Amino acid sequence: MEDKTDALPPVSDFSAWYNEILRRAEIMDVRYPVKGLYVWYPFGFSIRKHTYNMLRSLLDADHQETIFPLLIPDHEFMKEAEHIKGFEEEVYWVTHGGLSELDVKLALRPTSETAIYPMYALWVRSHADLPLKLYQIVNTFRYETKHTRPLIRLREITSFKEAHTVHCTWDEAAGQVEEAIRLYSQFYHSLGVPILVSKRPDWDKFPGADYTIAVDTIMPDGKTLQIGTAHHLGTHFSKTFNITYEDLAGEQQLAYQTCYGISERCIASVISVHGDDTGLVLPPSVAPVQVVIIPIIIGKRKDEVLAAAETLCSELKGLGIRVELDLRDMRPGAKYYHWELHGVPLRLELGPRDIDSGTIVAVDRFKQKQQIGSAAEVPALLEEIQKAITERAEASMEGKIAICTTIEEIRTAVESGVAVASWCGERDCADRIEAETDASLLGRELRGKHAEKVNGNSCVICGREGKGALIGRSY
Amino acid sequence: MEDKTDALPPVSDFSAWYNEILRRAEIMDVRYPVKGLYVWYPFGFSIRKHTYNMLRSLLDADHQETIFPLLIPDHEFMKEAEHIKGFEEEVYWVTHGGLSELDVKLALRPTSETAIYPMYALWVRSHADLPLKLYQIVNTFRYETKHTRPLIRLREITSFKEAHTVHCTWDEAAGQVEEAIRLYSQFYHSLGVPILVSKRPDWDKFPGADYTIAVDTIMPDGKTLQIGTAHHLGTHFSKTFNITYEDLAGEQQLAYQTCYGISERCIASVISVHGDDTGLVLPPSVAPVQVVIIPIIIGKRKDEVLAAAETLCSELKGLGIRVELDLRDMRPGAKYYHWELHGVPLRLELGPRDIDSGTIVAVDRFKQKQQIGSAAEVPALLEEIQKAITERAEASMEGKIAICTTIEEIRTAVESGVAVASWCGERDCADRIEAETDASLLGRELRGKHAEKVNGNSCVICGREGKGALIGRSY
Repeated sequence: MEDKTDALPPVSDFSAWYNEILRRAEIMDVRYPVKGLYVWYPFGFSIRKHTYNMLRSLLDADHQETIFPLLIPDHEFMKEAEHIKGFEEEVYWVTHGGLSELDVKLALRPTSETAIYPMYALWVRSHADLPLKLYQIVNTFRYETKHTRPLIRLREITSFKEAHTVHCTWDEAAGQVEEAIRLYSQFYHSLGVPILVSKRPDWDKFPGADYTIAVDTIMPDGKTLQIGTAHHLGTHFSKTFNITYEDLAGEQQLAYQTCYGISERCIASVISVHGDDTGLVLPPSVAPVQVVIIPIIIGKRKDEVLAAAETLCSELKGLGIRVELDLRDMRPGAKYYHWELHGVPLRLELGPRDIDSGTIVAVDRFKQKQQIGSAAEVPALLEEIQKAITERAEASMEGKIAICTTIEEIRTAVESGVAVASWCGERDCADRIEAETDASLLGRELRGKHAEKVNGNSCVICGREGKGALIGRSY
Repeated sequence: MEDKTDALPPVSDFSAWYNEILRRAEIMDVRYPVKGLYVWYPFGFSIRKHTYNMLRSLLDADHQETIFPLLIPDHEFMKEAEHIKGFEEEVYWVTHGGLSELDVKLALRPTSETAIYPMYALWVRSHADLPLKLYQIVNTFRYETKHTRPLIRLREITSFKEAHTVHCTWDEAAGQVEEAIRLYSQFYHSLGVPILVSKRPDWDKFPGADYTIAVDTIMPDGKTLQIGTAHHLGTHFSKTFNITYEDLAGEQQLAYQTCYGISERCIASVISVHGDDTGLVLPPSVAPVQVVIIPIIIGKRKDEVLAAAETLCSELKGLGIRVELDLRDMRPGAKYYHWELHGVPLRLELGPRDIDSGTIVAVDRFKQKQQIGSAAEVPALLEEIQKAITERAEASMEGKIAICTTIEEIRTAVESGVAVASWCGERDCADRIEAETDASLLGRELRGKHAEKVNGNSCVICGREGKGALIGRSY
C-alpha cells in the first residue's frame, strides 16, 4: 500500500509526517466511516502485540490479568460525584437493545472504576485479601469533541491497560503509585522512549483521586504527550462502593485504592520519538521484523545465494530473532526503501561476493554499514541498535528542555519544547504562567534531573520560593 | 473463595454443577449488576489466555491479526438485508454521546462483517491482494432475551475470535471453509474436546451466507453446544459493500468471502466436557497450573523437604512447565482438595521418606498414583494425562450418540444425547422430526463416522432415500 512516487514529508513538518507514516508504514487506516475510530493494519497490530506483551510481562510479576464488562449501568456510573463530573460530557450511552428501549441506560466504560469497584466490594473481606492487584487490557470509549488523531485522541481507545489495586493503608497505596511509575519507567525504557515524570496540580488530577502522577514524553514538534498516569484514589471510591476489610483487630476498615493506566499512546510515542525523514525507526524490542535479509541475486549464482540466505534465515530464527527473508521480485533498492519505511532495525545483504569472502553485509536503520561473519553476531548488533536508538531519543529530548527564569524565556521555550521553571505551588501563579505562555503547567517534576536546577529559586510570577515545574504545550 | 463446607453438586445435575464450578474454581463471577454480563476471575482468565494463545498460534500460520472498531454506523449496518433481519432484534444501539444525541446511531458489533467489509472494499484492488485472511479477538454484543448463562449465552461475548477472508473464486472460498474446519478440529483436539461437524440446513445458516458448517460438542446433560461456525458468504457482502478485484485480464470481478468464528464457548466446553464430581479437569495444554508440588512437612526435616521441593520446582520451570509450589500453612488434604477443584492435571508430593528413597509421588487428576524418579519424567506424564483426558472425553461423547431408525428411537436418544438418523434433505421432513422429538436438526454430518452408518437408508419421515443427519437438543 505504500506510495513510492512522493517523498515522505520531513519530521519537521510533524503533523503531515505523522499522518503519512501511519498510512505508508501500515500502522492505522483512518478511513473508517466514523470520526475518531481507526483500523489497525496487521503491521501496526504486530507492533502493538509486541509492545503490550512487554507491558504484560512487567505487570505479571505481581499483578493478575482479568476482564470486566464494557457496559456500566447508569446507577453505578453515577455514584461517585467527582468522577461523574469528570466524565459526563464524554460518555457514550447505550439506550436501546434490539427494537426496544432499555430500562437502565448503559455507559460504555471511559475507564473502569465504576465497573470494577462494585465487584471489589464483594471480593475484599479481610486484610488477608490485600493487597489486591488486577489489570485488564480493553477497549474504552470517550466521546471526544476535540480534533481526533489516531493513537493519540480517540473515540475508541482499543488498547487501554488499566490496573486497579486495593490496600490496607494510605501509605501502602502511595507506595503502589511509586511502584507503578517505576514499572512505567522500565516499560518506556524498553521502548527507548525518554520520559518526564511530574505530579499534576490538584486541579488537573484524575476525577476522584487524592493525587495524580503523570508520565509525559516530548514529541518532535515540541508538544508534550501524556503517556501514562497513576492515581492515588484514597478512600473516595471505597467509601462510595463500600470496599471495606476486616483488620487484625476484627474491625471493618475502609480500603485505600490506586489505579494506573497506559493507552495506545505508547505506540504513538514509539513512532513519533524515533521516526525520521526516511520513515519508522523501531527499537528491536518491539519491531515486528527485527532483521530483514535481502539476497543480492546476480546471474548464475542465484541458487547458491538463495540457499545461503535461507540458511542464514533459519539460523536467526533459531536464535529467537524475528526475521524476514525478502524474496520478492523487485530491485534491492526498492526493498531497502520498503523496510526502512517500516523501521526494520537491521538489514542483512548477501550476494555472491559475500559468500566468497564468508561475510555478510549488515546495515542498521541509520545506514551504518559493517561486515559480520555469522548469524551469531546479530543479537549483539541488535542490542547495540536498541541502545543507540535510546540514546538518540534521550539526547533529542534533552535538547527540547530549557531551564527558564523568566516568563519571556518560558514563552520562547514552549515554542519548541518544555520549559522548567520555579513555581511557588499556588494556583493563581500557575494560571498566570499558562495565560502568559499559552502553555500548560504539567506539574512539579519528580524523579527528574531538571527541576533540581531551579528548586529553591523564586517563583517566576510571585517571587516567593518555589520548586521546579514543567511547562509545555500538550496534545 | 472456595467453600469447603458443602459438596459440589454431581455432574449428573449439570446445571447446578456448572454454576457452582464457575464460582468455586474461580472462573467467572455472576454478580455483576447487569444481566448477561460476567466478570472473569484471574484463574478463569488464565485458562482463557492459554486457550486463545493456542488458537492464535494455529491461525498465525497464514492469517494476520488486527482490530477493527466496535461501533458500526447504522447506515453500514443496515446495508445487507438478510444480515439485518438476522440481527436487528439483538443489536445494542448507542444513541447518545455525553449530554447530546448522536446524528448517526452506532451499533455495538454483534459480529463484524459490516465494520470490516467497507475497509476491505478499499484494501482489495487486484488479484495479487488475494487471498486476504485477517482475524481479530474482540468483544461483541447480543441483546439476548433468552436465559443467559456464563460463557454460553452472553450479552457481552468478551472473547470472539472472528476471521474474515477474501478470495478470487467460489471454489477457493469453499476450500477456505474446509481449512477453517480443519483448523478448528485441530484446536479442539488440543483441548481434548471431541466434536461433531455438520452442515447446517439452509434455513439455519448465517444471515447472508451461501452455507454454514458448524462444530458442536455434547455436554454432560446430553445437549449440544455449538462451539464454532464457518460460513461461505459467496458474493452476498461483496455485492453490497462493493468488494471487487481486477483479474489477470484487467476486468473487475466481485470477490468471494468467508468468515468463521469461535467464542468463549470453547472455554465452556473444556470445563463441561472434562469436569467431574470433584471439580475441574483441565487438559495440560491449557491448565494455568499444570503441576502442583505439595511438600509433606513432618517434624524436624522441614528445611530439607522445603529445599528439595524448591529444587524440584525450579527444575520443572526450567522444562517450561507451569508449576506452583504450595507453601500455604494448611493440611495437605485441604491443598489436595483445592487443586483438584481447580483441575490441576498433576500433583507431586514430596516428604522425608520420598527424599530418602530418591523418589517423588505423582498423582494425576484421576487419583492414579505412581512414583517417579525425577522432574525429567514429568513432561511425558503430562502428555499421557492429556491423552487420557482426550480419550475419556471421546468415549463419553460416543456413549451419548445413538444410531436411530425411527422417530421413537430419536425421541429417546435426544433425552440424553444426539441421534443420528437418515433424512431426505427436505425442510418439511426436518420440521416434522423437530416437532415430534422436541429437538433440533443440526444438519448433515460431515467428516464424521456416524452418518455413514445410515447414509442411503430411508428418511425417517418420508421413506425416500436419505443421508445421516444429527438431531439433538441445543444450548
